[in-house]
Amino acid sequence: MTGTAKVLAISGGVGGAKLALGLANELEPEALAVLVNTADDFRHLGLQICPDIDTLLYTLSGRSNRSLGWGLEGESWQVMKALEELGGETWFRLGDNDLATHLWRTARLAAGESLSSVTRGLAQRMGVKVGILPMSDDSVSTVVHSDEGDLAFQHYFVRRQCEPQVSGFSFRGIEQASPSSELLQLLDSGQVAAVVICPSNPFVSVDPVLQLPGLWQKIAALQVPVVAVSPILAGQAVKGPAAKMLGELGQEVSAEAVMRHYSTHYPGFIDTFVIDQSDAALADQVADLGVSVAVTDTLMKSLDDKRRLARFVLSRAGH
Amino acid sequence: MTGTAKVLAISGGVGGAKLALGLANELEPEALAVLVNTADDFRHLGLQICPDIDTLLYTLSGRSNRSLGWGLEGESWQVMKALEELGGETWFRLGDNDLATHLWRTARLAAGESLSSVTRGLAQRMGVKVGILPMSDDSVSTVVHSDEGDLAFQHYFVRRQCEPQVSGFSFRGIEQASPSSELLQLLDSGQVAAVVICPSNPFVSVDPVLQLPGLWQKIAALQVPVVAVSPILAGQAVKGPAAKMLGELGQEVSAEAVMRHYSTHYPGFIDTFVIDQSDAALADQVADLGVSVAVTDTLMKSLDDKRRLARFVLSRAGH
Repeated sequence: MTGTAKVLAISGGVGGAKLALGLANELEPEALAVLVNTADDFRHLGLQICPDIDTLLYTLSGRSNRSLGWGLEGESWQVMKALEELGGETWFRLGDNDLATHLWRTARLAAGESLSSVTRGLAQRMGVKVGILPMSDDSVSTVVHSDEGDLAFQHYFVRRQCEPQVSGFSFRGIEQASPSSELLQLLDSGQVAAVVICPSNPFVSVDPVLQLPGLWQKIAALQVPVVAVSPILAGQAVKGPAAKMLGELGQEVSAEAVMRHYSTHYPGFIDTFVIDQSDAALADQVADLGVSVAVTDTLMKSLDDKRRLARFVLSRAGH
Repeated sequence: MTGTAKVLAISGGVGGAKLALGLANELEPEALAVLVNTADDFRHLGLQICPDIDTLLYTLSGRSNRSLGWGLEGESWQVMKALEELGGETWFRLGDNDLATHLWRTARLAAGESLSSVTRGLAQRMGVKVGILPMSDDSVSTVVHSDEGDLAFQHYFVRRQCEPQVSGFSFRGIEQASPSSELLQLLDSGQVAAVVICPSNPFVSVDPVLQLPGLWQKIAALQVPVVAVSPILAGQAVKGPAAKMLGELGQEVSAEAVMRHYSTHYPGFIDTFVIDQSDAALADQVADLGVSVAVTDTLMKSLDDKRRLARFVLSRAGH
């Protein structure tokens, strides 16, 4: 092993970013890299929008809007107001400060920079020292199969407020996509000492990352501890549509069902599954899926909660 | 002739828009169409920006910022501020309200609409009843040949504040571009009863329009009065680099030189050339170029000035 031992955290948006923030507070910046889902990314009003990357950037730079649960603190909305007056598309709310991020990104991408490089540049300018690695520099787009037909992810998630009933998901472009070269370099560096799967949506945040060609197998081959945190506690998702999706897919809405999903698609990949104390009664059933089960309070409200869960996860990952 | 007789005004940005506003105040909306230069248009930060079209839209909707001389009245600048904090490109100042226009346009273009159709949509939403016709739905880009090399127009005009010395201009893409189908339809309709060339920059505003393949010849073939207004008065341009360009191109800086430029490139096209009263002494020399010369006060400060010049021009065009 050369250089600093690193924890690689796999994250979608809000829920994952909370644990990432906890981890960032417990580890030196060079000891953490966050591998972020980009299958929610989309081109909107000419701009390249990367919701999960931005949630990480805004959360880790301490600028996220905690009351809204997305976007930036102290945001203003003049552009949206003017766009609304023009009868433009305003279902995806882009704040004035947030827009600057998208303009900056879109300009750099148009100049030929990779998303990885652009993200590094944004992180640097926002004072985020933790490495934020987009899963791929290639375009991958989540398609939601639903009773209203196939929907682009943000149309399902934001425009239709997750109301359509889902029957499955596919990731357009994933067969042709490669993990980003920065990610592959990290995996080849021998530096990754543990992997954390944050409490993100298994279907639309974690799956697109792990289903990049060869990626989960490559991570598994590192033979380092892989610890996943359930995004479902007491039969509910803290935020987002994970619970609703499980139900619509005909599965039980439980932490166990999440682990079953992971063990079905990525057999043997996860070593330890962290469930909430409210789900302690499920521990034996989850263990029957062939993982160690660790029970703790997984609800992250305060920064203290996030740090405590991060410490717990790190201890289970041998840190 | 079928339908309403129309005046077709050819315009670039600010100077042209002033006379267009005067014309719009003197004519019924359906009796005026403004043919606008699009060779200044560029893609910036992912957005399609059409400075001359927007100047017309903002001026004719009464929303233009008169103190700045560009952009919108009551504009706010939050996005630029945030972009500046990111170290982004802020040399082209995009106000928050102005950005909404560019986002709206870029989204519609991305959805496959033509620039003509998008412009019609914007005009409608801004309450502009006068037809605003982009010269082409194809991309044409002015390249400024200068002592600093070849510069994209906005780099010369805004970023470099017209400081480089020019040696000529070319219009990339013009050979492959067609006049917009709406423009061609109007020219074929038999409705155009007069043509006004607004006091816009001859080199970078009027030339790209008239040099679209076949366009000026097609307009000339209508055999309707063509009246041009000099953008140079008393050896100066009211605004913009027309005077500086004339000097750098080795020409006299005068209304006469402008008319000479027009008669060299578009022989026989212009019937009447309107010069400022301060240039009355040039009248005979200008007339020697083979046009009728009309002398009046061409400086447009107030709306009354614009209306008065519009009436003068219309009377010379047989209205």
